Amino acid sequence: MRFFSDNTAPICPEVFEALSAANHGLERAYGDDPWTERLSDVLGEFFGRKLKAYAVATGTAANALSLAVLCPPYGAIFAHEEGHIVRDECGAPEHATGGARVVPLAGAHGKLTSPILEAALDDSPVSVHTFQPAAVSITQATELGTSYRPHELAALAEAAHRRGLKVHLDGARFANALVFLGCHPADITWRAGVDVLSFGATKNGALAAEAVVFFEPAQAADFELRRKRAGHLLSKSRFVSAQLNAYVETGAWRRNAERANTFAQRIGHAAGNRLLEPVEANEVFLRLGAEGKARLRERGFAFYDWGAVAHGEARFVVSWNQPESDVSALCDALAGSSAS
Amino acid sequence: MRFFSDNTAPICPEVFEALSAANHGLERAYGDDPWTERLSDVLGEFFGRKLKAYAVATGTAANALSLAVLCPPYGAIFAHEEGHIVRDECGAPEHATGGARVVPLAGAHGKLTSPILEAALDDSPVSVHTFQPAAVSITQATELGTSYRPHELAALAEAAHRRGLKVHLDGARFANALVFLGCHPADITWRAGVDVLSFGATKNGALAAEAVVFFEPAQAADFELRRKRAGHLLSKSRFVSAQLNAYVETGAWRRNAERANTFAQRIGHAAGNRLLEPVEANEVFLRLGAEGKARLRERGFAFYDWGAVAHGEARFVVSWNQPESDVSALCDALAGSSAS
Amino acid sequence: MRFFSDNTAPICPEVFEALSAANHGLERAYGDDPWTERLSDVLGEFFGRKLKAYAVATGTAANALSLAVLCPPYGAIFAHEEGHIVRDECGAPEHATGGARVVPLAGAHGKLTSPILEAALDDSPVSVHTFQPAAVSITQATELGTSYRPHELAALAEAAHRRGLKVHLDGARFANALVFLGCHPADITWRAGVDVLSFGATKNGALAAEAVVFFEPAQAADFELRRKRAGHLLSKSRFVSAQLNAYVETGAWRRNAERANTFAQRIGHAAGNRLLEPVEANEVFLRLGAEGKARLRERGFAFYDWGAVAHGEARFVVSWNQPESDVSALCDALAGSSAS
Amino acid sequence: MRFFSDNTAPICPEVFEALSAANHGLERAYGDDPWTERLSDVLGEFFGRKLKAYAVATGTAANALSLAVLCPPYGAIFAHEEGHIVRDECGAPEHATGGARVVPLAGAHGKLTSPILEAALDDSPVSVHTFQPAAVSITQATELGTSYRPHELAALAEAAHRRGLKVHLDGARFANALVFLGCHPADITWRAGVDVLSFGATKNGALAAEAVVFFEPAQAADFELRRKRAGHLLSKSRFVSAQLNAYVETGAWRRNAERANTFAQRIGHAAGNRLLEPVEANEVFLRLGAEGKARLRERGFAFYDWGAVAHGEARFVVSWNQPESDVSALCDALAGSSAS
Repeated sequence: MRFFSDNTAPICPEVFEALSAANHGLERAYGDDPWTERLSDVLGEFFGRKLKAYAVATGTAANALSLAVLCPPYGAIFAHEEGHIVRDECGAPEHATGGARVVPLAGAHGKLTSPILEAALDDSPVSVHTFQPAAVSITQATELGTSYRPHELAALAEAAHRRGLKVHLDGARFANALVFLGCHPADITWRAGVDVLSFGATKNGALAAEAVVFFEPAQAADFELRRKRAGHLLSKSRFVSAQLNAYVETGAWRRNAERANTFAQRIGHAAGNRLLEPVEANEVFLRLGAEGKARLRERGFAFYDWGAVAHGEARFVVSWNQPESDVSALCDALAGSSAS
Repeated sequence: MRFFSDNTAPICPEVFEALSAANHGLERAYGDDPWTERLSDVLGEFFGRKLKAYAVATGTAANALSLAVLCPPYGAIFAHEEGHIVRDECGAPEHATGGARVVPLAGAHGKLTSPILEAALDDSPVSVHTFQPAAVSITQATELGTSYRPHELAALAEAAHRRGLKVHLDGARFANALVFLGCHPADITWRAGVDVLSFGATKNGALAAEAVVFFEPAQAADFELRRKRAGHLLSKSRFVSAQLNAYVETGAWRRNAERANTFAQRIGHAAGNRLLEPVEANEVFLRLGAEGKARLRERGFAFYDWGAVAHGEARFVVSWNQPESDVSALCDALAGSSAS
Repeated sequence: MRFFSDNTAPICPEVFEALSAANHGLERAYGDDPWTERLSDVLGEFFGRKLKAYAVATGTAANALSLAVLCPPYGAIFAHEEGHIVRDECGAPEHATGGARVVPLAGAHGKLTSPILEAALDDSPVSVHTFQPAAVSITQATELGTSYRPHELAALAEAAHRRGLKVHLDGARFANALVFLGCHPADITWRAGVDVLSFGATKNGALAAEAVVFFEPAQAADFELRRKRAGHLLSKSRFVSAQLNAYVETGAWRRNAERANTFAQRIGHAAGNRLLEPVEANEVFLRLGAEGKARLRERGFAFYDWGAVAHGEARFVVSWNQPESDVSALCDALAGSSAS
Repeated sequence: MRFFSDNTAPICPEVFEALSAANHGLERAYGDDPWTERLSDVLGEFFGRKLKAYAVATGTAANALSLAVLCPPYGAIFAHEEGHIVRDECGAPEHATGGARVVPLAGAHGKLTSPILEAALDDSPVSVHTFQPAAVSITQATELGTSYRPHELAALAEAAHRRGLKVHLDGARFANALVFLGCHPADITWRAGVDVLSFGATKNGALAAEAVVFFEPAQAADFELRRKRAGHLLSKSRFVSAQLNAYVETGAWRRNAERANTFAQRIGHAAGNRLLEPVEANEVFLRLGAEGKARLRERGFAFYDWGAVAHGEARFVVSWNQPESDVSALCDALAGSSAS
C-alpha cells in the first residue's frame, strides 16, 4: 500500500485514450500539429482568458523555464523554504536562468505572505553589489498539502508587483487545490495576479505533461527558444499536447483530484491530533514518532519520512488511482494506533 | 503525402503496447521502477557488453547532456557542419556544458574523417587562451542520410582518443544505419571506439524516448545530476524506459528501420542522377530545381527544402509507417519527371 | 573623515614603489614574467609550504574563481549569511560555477562553527534531487570584524572534510586577522585545513591585487583556464604580481594592518557598551541609534549604516592610511556622546 | 629585441603620472569617485557625442561583457575567424553570455564585409531550432594589422542593423587604427554605426585599463550588474579611470600609436615582398620560411610564429616604447636577408 507520491500513479483512462486517438498518421513535428495548436485555446477556455500555453514533459522543466523568462542571471527568486525549486530540483532554476539565486523564506503552512516577502525585501537593500529581486515563486497546493486562498494569493501578488517582482505559481498539484477551494481557476491565477503558472497534469493522471501558462501572452517573450535550447521541445509534440487537452476537456483533472482529496480528508480525520497541517489537497502530514512509523510500515504501508528521520514525521500522498482499500486500511491502522 | 521528417510518425504498435502494459499500479517514481532497472541490461544485451544507459525524452537532451559529461565549459566539441548539435539545437550543448564551443568542420557526405579532425586540431594550437579540445561528436546515420562504416568510425575514434578527445555518437537514426550496414551494434559503437551514444528511438517508433548509453559505466560520472538539473528526469520514468525496452526487445527497431530504408532505396533509384548523396538510411536528398520541387508539391508531396531555397535541393525522409502508396506515387512522379 | 571602507584607501608606498620598479622594458605578457614566476615562491615562503598562487585584480574574482574550481554547477557552497559571497557579489560565485547554490547559515559574530555546518548538512539529506554539498566558504577576518581562532578554523575544516566538503577562506582582510591573532599564517590556513585562500592585498594597501592560493597545488586543477575565460588574466601581469610580492616581502601587510587594527581598537574602547561585536581586525560595529548616527554625521564623520537603517547600527572601517586625527576625533565624539 | 606583442610594454609616463596623482586620500570605492565620474565625459569629448563608458581591467572582459549585453544566451555573434573572441579568449564571450555562439567567418585582410555577413545570414535560415543572430563583432585595427576604412565599417554596420544585429567593435588597438586612418574617432565608431566599443588602452600605454563605450547610453542596460557579477568592478576604481582619462586627455594615445605605427611602417618597407598584409597599424606579418625565422632568432629577434609553424609565417608587433634600435636592427636584418 504505497503512499509515497502521486508520481507513482499510472496514466488515467481519459489521457491514455487521448494518446491512442492521436496515434495515427504523419503529423508535423515540434508543435505544428492540431493538438498543440489547440492547447492555448483549451487552457484559455479553462482559465477564462486569452493566454499562451506551452507543453513540456516535467514539472521541473516547467518551473525552471518559466523562471528563466521572468528572471535574469543576476536576479533573485523568492520562494518558500519547502518549495520544490528550493529543495528538489538539483538547481534547475539556477541552470535555466544562468545562475539566478533562489532565496528561501520561512512561512507557516508552507505559505508565503506579503509581510514575509516585504520583510525579506526590506532586509536586503538593493545595489549593484546584490542580486536584483525579480520574482516570487509559490506553490499551489503547497508542499505541505495546504492551499492558498484567493485573497492570500492576491495580497502576495499585489505586494510582489508593487515591488517590481513577477509572480510564478508552481501548480504541480494545481487541480487538487482548485477542487479543495471550489473556486474558478481564474481566482487563484491571473485574477489574483499570477503571471505564469506551471500547470501540472502528470501527478494527477497524465504520462508526462505540464503546461507553462503565460496569462499575459507578451510575457512569454523568448520562452520557445529557451525551451528548445533546454531540450524540452518534443519532436512528437502532439502526444504531450493531446494529454493536456484531454486532461482538461474531459474533466479528468476534477474527477481525479476529487477522489484523491476525499481520501486524504479521510486519512486526516483518522489521524486526529497527529495531523501536522490542515488537509487541503491530497497530502497528509503526520507526527507519528519512530515507533508509529515502524508500526505502519510493518503493516505494509509505504511512505516517506518528512524532514530528518529523527523528527518522527511522515508524509502520505494519495494518488488519483489509490485503491480505496489502501485508504481504509490506513485509516483503520491510524484509528487503532490512536486507541492504543 | 508527407516526407517532412520521421518525427511526423506516430507510435509503433510494439511501443504503444508496452505503454499500455506498464500502465497499472503504483510504482516508485524517478527511475526506481522495474522498467528502468532493466534498461541498462536490455541495452547491454543489445550492444554485447556491460554498460550504463539513461532514458530521456528528446534527442536534443540526449546529445546535450552526453556532451556536458564529456566536455568542460572551456572545452571544444568538434562536429560536422551539418550536425544536429551545430544547426538544430538552439545551443543546447552550449547551455548544458556551460558555454563550451561546438566547432563545425566540413566533410564529404556528412562525415568527418580522422584527417579532417587532425587538421582542425593542428591548425589551432592549444594554450590557456584557447578552448581545450574535449570531444568529437558525429552522427550515425548522418544528416545527409549516409552511414559511417565500422572502419571509418574506428579510424576517427582512434585519432580522437590519441589526441585526448572523447567520442560521442548522435544516433537519432541509429537503427537505420545499423540495418543498412548489417553489422552488429557493437561494430559501430564501443568496438569502434565510441564512448557515449545518444540512442534514438523516437523517430523510429517511440513516443518520446532516447537512451544515453555510456559504454564505460565509470564515464557516466555526474550524468544523473545533470539530467535532473536540466529537468530531464521524468517522474513517471517507467513509461520512457518501457518504450525503450520494448523498442529493443521486440525487434521493432529493426522492422521499422528496414521498412523505411527499403522505401528510401526505391525513391533513390527512381531519382536517378538527381540523387545528391548515396541512400544509406531512410533519407533521400535530391537536386530537383525550383521547377521540379514545385511540380512535386503540386502533386501533393510535402517535403523540406534542403539548404537555401535557391539551391533547388530537397530532403525526403521516410517514416517507419510511411504508406507504401506514398512511396510508389513519389517514385512514379520522379520517374515521370525524369522522362519529361 | 571617512570610515566607509578600507576600499577607499590609496596605494601604500611599498606597493607603489614596486609598480614603479617593474615599469621598464618589454616583458612577456600573461604571466610569463619574472614577477609572476616568483609569486608562488613568495607566498610559499610566507605560508611556510609549497603552494600555487594566482593573481587576480579583485576579491570578487578571487572568491568566485576559487569556488568554481571547488564546486560543480550542481554543488552547494555553505557560507555565513553575512558573507561577501552571499550579499555583495551580485552572484559572482553562481556565475563562475555555472549555477551552484550559496547556502546562507546563521552564526554568532559572523562565524560558522562545525555544529552549524553539520546541522545544515543533516537537515538536508542528499539525493539526485538536491544540490550536492561541495564546499564551505568562510571569511577571515569576518564581515563583522571578528577573527576565527586557529582551533575554530581547524574544527570547522575537520567537519567539512569529514563530510566531503572543501574549505575556502575569503581573506579580503586576512592581514588584519593575522596581526590580531599574532599567529603564523599557516595556523589559520593550511595547517587548520583551509584548501584555498583568497589572499587580499587591495584593501590593505595595493592598487588591485589579490592572490588565489591553493595549498595543495594539484587542487588548482583548471584554475588558469577559468581565470582566462572570466577575463581575469591580465596581459601585463607583472604589475599585479609585483604588487603582491612587494606587499608580502616588504612587510607592508603587517605595518598597514597593525596601524589600522590599533586605531580600530581605540574606537572600540571609546564606544564602550555601544560596541556590537568584539574588535578583532580593522572594523568597528556600533549601536548608535538614529540620533547618534545623525550627530556623528553632522560632525563630519562618514560611515555606512549596517543592516536596515531602522536598526540604528553603523559600521566604521579603518583604512591603512586613516589619518590619526580622524580616529582621535571619532573617539572624542564617541566619548562625548556617551557622557551626554 | 622583443616583438612578441604590445602587451609586453610597460606603462607610459602620462599614465603612470596619473596613477601617482590619484594616489592620495580616502575616496569612495566602486566607481563613486571623481575620476570615474569624469570618464564618460572624457570619452564623450573624444568621440564627439554623449555616451556611457565603463572601465574594466582587461580587453577580454571588455569584449565579453559588451557582448553579454548585446546578445542573449541563444544568440549568435558573427566574427572574423582570426578574431580575438574566436581564438584567444578561452570562451569568455560564451561564458559571459551564458552560452551564445561565436560564428567564425572568413574574410580577406582580417576583415568582414557586408556581403560576407549577409551570405552567412542567408545560408542559415533562422527558426526556433537555431541560434538567433544577435551581433557582429569586428576588430579595429584587425588581428592582421589592417584597418577598416570608415566606409567599410559603415557598409558592414548598415547591413548588420538592417538584419537586426548590433555592432561591437573590439578596439584593443583602436588608437593605432585611428592614427593610421587620420580620421575623427567618430568616423570609425558611432558615425559608422558601431553600437559598442571595447576601447583599449592597455597595449598602448596603460597598466590595465579598457573602457566599454556604449554610444547609445540606453543600450548599456544591465552592463553594471554584469560587470559586478563577473568580478570586474574594481573596488579602487579611481585608479583604472585615472589611467583612461590620462591616456585620452594627455594625447598619449596618439603619441604612442604614432611612434609604434611609424616603426611598423619601416619594418614593412624593409620586408618588401615578404609582407603578408598591408601595414596599417603597429603589426607586421611576414612570410619568412623556417630558415628566415631561424636566422632572425639567432640574431636576437623574438617574435611569434603566425599560424601553424610549418607555414613559415611570423608576426612582429611594435610596442609604444619599442627601442628605435630594435627596429633599425630588424630592418637591417630584413634588408640583408632579402639581399642574400
